[in-house]
Amino acid sequence: MLKRFDAYGWHTARVEDGNDIEAIDRAIDWAIADERPSLIAVRTVIGFGSPNKAGSQKSHGAPLGPDEVKLTKAAYGVDPEATFAVPADVAALYKERSDHGATLVAEHTKKLLAYATAFPAEAAELQRRMAGTLPAGWESALPKYELGGDAPTRNVSQSSISALGAVLPELIGGSADLSESNLTDIHGGGKFTATESGRNISYGVREHAMAAIANGISYHGGLIPFVATFLTFSDYLRGALRLAALANLGSIFVFTHDSIGLGEDGPTHQPVEHYAALRAIPNVRFFRPGDPNEAAAAWGVAVERRHAPTVLAFTRQKLPVLSGSITGAAAGVRRGAYVLREATGAAKMILISTGSELHLAVAAAEQLEAAGTPTRVVSMPCPELFGEQDAAYRESVLPAALRARVAIEAGVSLGWDRWSGTDGAIIAMDRFGASAPAPTLFKEFGFTPERIVEIAKGVLAGSVHGVVPTPHLHDGHQVR
Amino acid sequence: MLKRFDAYGWHTARVEDGNDIEAIDRAIDWAIADERPSLIAVRTVIGFGSPNKAGSQKSHGAPLGPDEVKLTKAAYGVDPEATFAVPADVAALYKERSDHGATLVAEHTKKLLAYATAFPAEAAELQRRMAGTLPAGWESALPKYELGGDAPTRNVSQSSISALGAVLPELIGGSADLSESNLTDIHGGGKFTATESGRNISYGVREHAMAAIANGISYHGGLIPFVATFLTFSDYLRGALRLAALANLGSIFVFTHDSIGLGEDGPTHQPVEHYAALRAIPNVRFFRPGDPNEAAAAWGVAVERRHAPTVLAFTRQKLPVLSGSITGAAAGVRRGAYVLREATGAAKMILISTGSELHLAVAAAEQLEAAGTPTRVVSMPCPELFGEQDAAYRESVLPAALRARVAIEAGVSLGWDRWSGTDGAIIAMDRFGASAPAPTLFKEFGFTPERIVEIAKGVLAGSVHGVVPTPHLHDGHQVR
Repeated sequence: MLKRFDAYGWHTARVEDGNDIEAIDRAIDWAIADERPSLIAVRTVIGFGSPNKAGSQKSHGAPLGPDEVKLTKAAYGVDPEATFAVPADVAALYKERSDHGATLVAEHTKKLLAYATAFPAEAAELQRRMAGTLPAGWESALPKYELGGDAPTRNVSQSSISALGAVLPELIGGSADLSESNLTDIHGGGKFTATESGRNISYGVREHAMAAIANGISYHGGLIPFVATFLTFSDYLRGALRLAALANLGSIFVFTHDSIGLGEDGPTHQPVEHYAALRAIPNVRFFRPGDPNEAAAAWGVAVERRHAPTVLAFTRQKLPVLSGSITGAAAGVRRGAYVLREATGAAKMILISTGSELHLAVAAAEQLEAAGTPTRVVSMPCPELFGEQDAAYRESVLPAALRARVAIEAGVSLGWDRWSGTDGAIIAMDRFGASAPAPTLFKEFGFTPERIVEIAKGVLAGSVHGVVPTPHLHDGHQVR
Repeated sequence: MLKRFDAYGWHTARVEDGNDIEAIDRAIDWAIADERPSLIAVRTVIGFGSPNKAGSQKSHGAPLGPDEVKLTKAAYGVDPEATFAVPADVAALYKERSDHGATLVAEHTKKLLAYATAFPAEAAELQRRMAGTLPAGWESALPKYELGGDAPTRNVSQSSISALGAVLPELIGGSADLSESNLTDIHGGGKFTATESGRNISYGVREHAMAAIANGISYHGGLIPFVATFLTFSDYLRGALRLAALANLGSIFVFTHDSIGLGEDGPTHQPVEHYAALRAIPNVRFFRPGDPNEAAAAWGVAVERRHAPTVLAFTRQKLPVLSGSITGAAAGVRRGAYVLREATGAAKMILISTGSELHLAVAAAEQLEAAGTPTRVVSMPCPELFGEQDAAYRESVLPAALRARVAIEAGVSLGWDRWSGTDGAIIAMDRFGASAPAPTLFKEFGFTPERIVEIAKGVLAGSVHGVVPTPHLHDGHQVR
């Protein structure tokens, strides 16, 4: 165990007796004196002091029980009948440490006040960062995209990171050895290394540690940490992401290459179940923005959300700017879903979509309108956040009476029934992907405006509802 | 890197030049001669031979391009214009290896035939195991439970493992250092160590490696591997579980302590999002059996399912035997869902549930019946498997016309709308748990027959539908 950490370049030490306070003290002093990270292995006895259960797994998973508690108290020289008896020397030690702590806090507060008097602007800035609030006007830094443009949303994320980095000095982060693919550079932010105190961290291929480090930074406060990898590799950091959610930490997770749209790398790298798997974690908000403006808006929501983790899913491939996002994305993404394209006349069909399928839904809506069906397109980058909105807003986006709906997303169908409804349909990716250029995959797996139109017509006719089976690939090489 | 594997007790070696075939040969010979697992680090140049892209990340993520391909072919002395040109010496080497392989296969087949003649029974057994079929009558080994009994389903799993282990010599497995909690001992199966060839593997606290090892065993064939840990720690092995699903491997995953019902260990150990997160993976079938008979039946389905992974979720706490499972579980679990309790008269309400909430649904149904509402209880240990059944069976369990439904599960609500429907309701656990005795948690988080009855009445009255908010804990210590 220690050898492994030696191999990592850590300082390691061993204390053979967990009751040897002086040896532990010495080991801690050595660790503090050593510039490397330290691991001190201390040998202890589980259930120490319990006459019958010490050294046994019996003292691990279950309480000692009233009789054994009495015996253990006796073994420690404490009155076996007393509850919460604290020996006088222990109470005195705690009192002494508590007084010492109060002195330190008072000294710190005094220093801080002196600092605020001498450097009022800097002190206000420190206070702002530690409080986790954002400076006035920060939103205007986010990039905006005009009709006719297009961009991979990972590139929009890159622009957002650099733009936010310029107005938010507390933004700090990096990628698990995929910065060239995730596009996470804070331009001009400098490097964070053993000798440099910049804001770009090279985490290396260690997703779980990366997320755990971000959690530590969040716990410290005063900084907004982000981490990045491919969406499919989010599986490797779920433990730390879950803890961020459980501990109300505002770490930001940037996951690019968010679907079959990554193309040739194939099914091992193509997320399909990950949207549902991330949406499932309480307190996590998973955003899959559908065009460049939504991608920038999602970054805005993420930096605001300081007391819970935000996950941002971005594309490798280009997405066109959709006209509804230009005025709608900033407010709409913040509510989880919004009307991206209103029907011409009273809507008879709603298409609900996210990410790279959103522009296909818009194209399908245009075809449906041309065929005489007024069709609304709802962009739903974060269904969970939409579910938290007030009933009036939800009704304004998805009227309960309008049950002719089709949800379209290139991930598993799990969870979409809530929005498509019993009488609606779901076009999803209920199988693993394949290796081919992205346009081929979208076509072969059935994500085309023409198929959306066909299924929408089936829903209108009452002949189609529920999950539409995902097509097999024609070449027979698909995974079951 | 190599130091780390040295620390693990591996044999390690380094080859400085990836083009030095003899050095690689020597390193492999040493590795074969060494009894320890081996890691050989070979230094190579990415894109080797490409005049302009060798040694650069440009040759990693994108094709070289037609011009650079020609230059690279020229650098290798191959005709730049030829497509799929194979030098004669390479073709000859492959031919020689292919002929050698054919000889080895012929020798093996001959040996196998001789073995089958000399030992027909043993050869038939070998063939059975390699084919992944089960011996006649194996199902009768599974334990059965009578009305009035109860058991934690992890104990049923223990009984099933030992019973199946006796009739299936190919069953092999163990736990990630939690065998005392997961209860995974194949009684009389012996230990699998460096010197013993038994069937109980002590994996240590390394969930991902454990699952990867099981995948390797599945790839080899002839064995049925299972692994085990707490359900919440399934997050640590998702990468390997996903590969099992993608590669059609029949590894079995035993995850105990499957809900808030584990009690005092608290929210870090209490799975809530894991049901949905595991159901989301294509080709994975996640079973959460609702009583002892269903737990045994789920083990039966798992050992039969040789070409895709099965996940079994078991309780720490006792569950009562439900009368409908005695005759219904064996066939019903195999179909993913079944009518556990039929309504007295034409059903006006369907309660759908899984796992430790199933008996609460039965109790609620009895109260509803007493109040005049004929109520069916559907046990749905595996919704995905139920979704694959033919339409007639699905209609027989969940008639489309009967939309008054309540789904009850102590996990996140994500995915349940498919079965509860737009007009039904979901009682779920859309927040993290807490540390308290199990009965307290079920009560405080709203999993009681009385609350199910109240919500069912609301659904019947048309005043309740969709996800019912999960209550906060009264003590204010709940996690947001």
